[in-house]
Amino acid sequence: MRYYGYNEFLVDMKQLVNVLDFEPDGIVAIARGGMSIAHVLGIALDINEVYLINAISYSDYQKEVLKISNPPSLEGRKDILIVDDIVDSGESMQRVCQILQDMNPDIHFKTASIFYKPEAIFKPDYYIHQTHGWIEFFWEVDVLKD
Amino acid sequence: MRYYGYNEFLVDMKQLVNVLDFEPDGIVAIARGGMSIAHVLGIALDINEVYLINAISYSDYQKEVLKISNPPSLEGRKDILIVDDIVDSGESMQRVCQILQDMNPDIHFKTASIFYKPEAIFKPDYYIHQTHGWIEFFWEVDVLKD
Repeated sequence: MRYYGYNEFLVDMKQLVNVLDFEPDGIVAIARGGMSIAHVLGIALDINEVYLINAISYSDYQKEVLKISNPPSLEGRKDILIVDDIVDSGESMQRVCQILQDMNPDIHFKTASIFYKPEAIFKPDYYIHQTHGWIEFFWEVDVLKD
Repeated sequence: MRYYGYNEFLVDMKQLVNVLDFEPDGIVAIARGGMSIAHVLGIALDINEVYLINAISYSDYQKEVLKISNPPSLEGRKDILIVDDIVDSGESMQRVCQILQDMNPDIHFKTASIFYKPEAIFKPDYYIHQTHGWIEFFWEVDVLKD
């Protein structure tokens, strides 16, 4: 278990901006994990066109089911960066990419995450850290502490 | 000009959770300002159903124009909390509320912001601070500093 705090996040967002080798004209955050990233990257890259797509895992008859919902309209966009906090199994990022690419065959998509697990079925174009463990993101735990 | 940092945000998010006197089953963030709030509140209130709506101000023939776009589908929701960082003129929050209420006549909407300017044309149901000045939110300035 590793705590990931705001100061580290800030350093990583600056690094992510530096390593991006394309200029997106829109950002799609996978909710909820990608929301704070999309907010800060939207500011850093001066992109107002920020969108959400929901990826929710739930248990159905003891099986994990991943539901992707609310794909946004990306009308007028050409180059989209899809962001999430961690590419864990890789299923969320892979499914989101497929859905958005199918809906928008002319848009060029790239993907970014802060953490990436090498055993995932999907490797993002950009990531900051490799990990094998569980990450406690500040946006998930700080507000729940006394 | 007042800097608004992460630690103060955390205190305010805890307070906002405490003063909420209804139980939303969805959160709509006005992008970009409301995104980090919606992220943390989604965690704190255990709400996966988080949505964005875009409000963008731009100059058109020397006139400020406010464009609201990408209203989300709120199908299946009953009680929605709309969030933004600041209610300044109040125009964004008022227009977003009107649009979402018109699209979803059966949904009950409430509104929350961190800052509220009393001269605004719209007063949110919940806010933490009154202000007359300009706020530098950490998500807007920290990533741009060296």
